[in-house]
Amino acid sequence: MTDLDPAIAARLKRSADGLVPAVVQQHDTGEVLMLGWMDDEALARTLQTRRATYWSRSRQEYWVKGETSGHAQHVHEVRLDCDGDTLLVKVEQVGAACHTGDRTCFDADRLDG
Amino acid sequence: MTDLDPAIAARLKRSADGLVPAVVQQHDTGEVLMLGWMDDEALARTLQTRRATYWSRSRQEYWVKGETSGHAQHVHEVRLDCDGDTLLVKVEQVGAACHTGDRTCFDADRLDG
Repeated sequence: MTDLDPAIAARLKRSADGLVPAVVQQHDTGEVLMLGWMDDEALARTLQTRRATYWSRSRQEYWVKGETSGHAQHVHEVRLDCDGDTLLVKVEQVGAACHTGDRTCFDADRLDG
Repeated sequence: MTDLDPAIAARLKRSADGLVPAVVQQHDTGEVLMLGWMDDEALARTLQTRRATYWSRSRQEYWVKGETSGHAQHVHEVRLDCDGDTLLVKVEQVGAACHTGDRTCFDADRLDG
């Protein structure tokens, strides 16, 4: 059991491992910062605390973005897509979103130019 | 075998079903339009044709966005994230990205306001 609103939980379509991808976007500039994964509990915590919280697939634990780095994400809004299988989280990103120190996780590797 | 550049294929980290999520963004406004899924072949076709091409998990087939609707995505750039497990595809979206007729797949359902 989680604290996620049952009306929201009923709309979520989760992958086989119970997760939904969350696209994270800087609310004002529109930059796509990263992609995280949320289960029901991570989404509930994100909505309640307004601090972006993910499920770390590599560490198999909840992960409050910025808890160790200080690079927190303050949540402005959360949207669910038309299929119920993807979240869009609009945030105010403190500092760098990427663990490499880049502003976004997509800065370093362009495939086509 | 696909035509994907081996140097790119070597950097991709795919899910158990061989797919990578692709965040699709309008190149100039920054709108997040949708999330699609690509396997190596869909990524190769996207890079070669400059028309966004996905693997449809529901239909289990390749899907050239706009092929039936006319709502094509002309690809401006493709980026891979720091972990190699997410793509960012910046496009010029013709018309509505969402099958509902909305501009983006995230327009209809805000969870927190």
